[in-house]
Amino acid sequence: MTEHEFYMNLALNNAKAMKGQTDPNPLVGSVIVNHNQIVGVGTHLKAGEPHAEIHALRMAGEHAYGGTIYVTLEPCSHHGRTGPCAEALVEAGIKRAVIATLDPNPLVAGNGVKILKDAGIEVVIGVHEQQAREMNEVFNKFILEKKPFITMKSGISLDGKVATHSLSSKWITSEDARADVHRLRSENMAILVGINTVLKDDPALTARIPNGRNPLRVVIDSSLKVPLNYQVVADKKAETWIFTSQSYDKAKREQLEKRGITVIETSGRKKVDIEETVSILGEKGISSLFIEGGGNINASFLQNRLIDKVILYFAPKLVGGKDAPTFLEGNGVEKMEDAIELTGTEIQKVGKDFRFSGYPVYKKDS
Amino acid sequence: MTEHEFYMNLALNNAKAMKGQTDPNPLVGSVIVNHNQIVGVGTHLKAGEPHAEIHALRMAGEHAYGGTIYVTLEPCSHHGRTGPCAEALVEAGIKRAVIATLDPNPLVAGNGVKILKDAGIEVVIGVHEQQAREMNEVFNKFILEKKPFITMKSGISLDGKVATHSLSSKWITSEDARADVHRLRSENMAILVGINTVLKDDPALTARIPNGRNPLRVVIDSSLKVPLNYQVVADKKAETWIFTSQSYDKAKREQLEKRGITVIETSGRKKVDIEETVSILGEKGISSLFIEGGGNINASFLQNRLIDKVILYFAPKLVGGKDAPTFLEGNGVEKMEDAIELTGTEIQKVGKDFRFSGYPVYKKDS
Repeated sequence: MTEHEFYMNLALNNAKAMKGQTDPNPLVGSVIVNHNQIVGVGTHLKAGEPHAEIHALRMAGEHAYGGTIYVTLEPCSHHGRTGPCAEALVEAGIKRAVIATLDPNPLVAGNGVKILKDAGIEVVIGVHEQQAREMNEVFNKFILEKKPFITMKSGISLDGKVATHSLSSKWITSEDARADVHRLRSENMAILVGINTVLKDDPALTARIPNGRNPLRVVIDSSLKVPLNYQVVADKKAETWIFTSQSYDKAKREQLEKRGITVIETSGRKKVDIEETVSILGEKGISSLFIEGGGNINASFLQNRLIDKVILYFAPKLVGGKDAPTFLEGNGVEKMEDAIELTGTEIQKVGKDFRFSGYPVYKKDS
Repeated sequence: MTEHEFYMNLALNNAKAMKGQTDPNPLVGSVIVNHNQIVGVGTHLKAGEPHAEIHALRMAGEHAYGGTIYVTLEPCSHHGRTGPCAEALVEAGIKRAVIATLDPNPLVAGNGVKILKDAGIEVVIGVHEQQAREMNEVFNKFILEKKPFITMKSGISLDGKVATHSLSSKWITSEDARADVHRLRSENMAILVGINTVLKDDPALTARIPNGRNPLRVVIDSSLKVPLNYQVVADKKAETWIFTSQSYDKAKREQLEKRGITVIETSGRKKVDIEETVSILGEKGISSLFIEGGGNINASFLQNRLIDKVILYFAPKLVGGKDAPTFLEGNGVEKMEDAIELTGTEIQKVGKDFRFSGYPVYKKDS
């Protein structure tokens, strides 16, 4: 680890510790170093309060003069509630700024850096950039597109199956992996499944971990087939929104609404319009969506290029079967070269299972 | 890493460096430590030459007295070409023996340890046992069962597909992963594919790496459909054995044999008998078999509980498709609890891809 990486790591760790308490602001951490001593540490705590750099400058006091600041996000250039941080750094006499990532908004990216450079401050960009970007991946998307950051999750066998040919599916993954999923549910604002998953498993879709926050439950149900006595309708453990098509059952809608369920029509004639569903969720302020659909829901989201991140729990087992369902069905791509590649891939052990994560890269022309 | 693990690691590394030159003997390494100094290092170099312990004792000379010996395999108790190592350790005045794994043959396992214990030597068993066992996994099986150690390998997408629904399959994995496969081909005595793979890809099945040794090519071809101008028949780059059923084409057999191809009948009436194929390979001295079959060959070997090790290269991409073939077809298991679990699992990055390996555990009752 280089010196830059060492200090940026500290800034990142401080930023990440605030996960969940800075909304709608991003996570940001900062460290000021002078003559090989850390003289200031700052982190953004809460929207409306000072940015990370301001906290670090305050702690450093006069020791900031001539020092190097490490900050996980480009210092702001706008006059918000705490004034432009870039100008504060100039005033404090900072000599060098090491920045993990530029502002996610391309319209303002580089403006903070420009203020620093114009004042003669040396600027280094890109130290631990990927970590800094991933830490705010939900924020970065939502702030720009007003659409939720969508994570597709599946628990599968090594051969990609989610069930046997006779549709037996319990349990593929280990308890450790399932606990990890409950943590992810808790970190997302909403969780989405298709009606087939509801009919098959009657899931609660809650975050069953200590201090778990239950996400909003979203069900894709083109004709409102969801049974009234099923958990997503009856258990009151979390809010449920059901997206439907133009062919839904009107009487059923009334019954559902009477039970406190929100029914939202999309313009799809027979089937729920998926893209519209995502736009509506964004408009309603849902910044993160966790999909635990079956192979068809997954395929339809992926085909519509709506998946931002893929998380797979591989159980170390083999199921086999030409007709055993996999987690990605539909038609799939035609040519192998059109397969959707994932970048930023990581894999780690979770109990007996392996947790893979990566980010789909959609080609421009296809 | 503990002290025991540190020294055993050195012994393992020395043993592994001899890969390929000790056949038909196993790889074995040994280290002697006295008063925190390494006083002897030994490794078995070649069948007919001294065992690892003897080399280490010779290097240590009088410094072996009162020392600790680390050895990756239980010292032998039989009077072979170099006498029982266990007795040599007793004579040299060794005080403690740390052993990674017992003799693979259950009939003699423990005999060497007994000689040591009877002489008052302290014995520790099981340090880095898994590594020591895996290093000799082919030897350990073949010596006991006279059947090849069988590795099933496949290059797949994250969703387990080996091709798209239109059977486009080139290339799933990266060049790095493919180079790794060529290394594995070179390490195995034989490589096996089904006739469908031959007809589809006309593969050479050679080890295309520097100093690669081409394995024997084994084709499962129930009616001898293999075209005479295809590489496995015509290129003379390696020997080819074709296993067939009782329904083969007699004229074709003659044509194949005229070209130097070995045709072997199994007792299967319409389809090649897979278990018989494996037994015949073992009788003919093939100790390791590498299967690069499609989903049906893989399923039939797995169903017959013939796979000892599974190696999967996961390309970080998604193919999708209900009808896209996966690497494990057939019927598969009926209930999720009957899925075949793998143990000793490992995963590591190979270029852009992930290489998984593990060992199927077959339940006794199923």
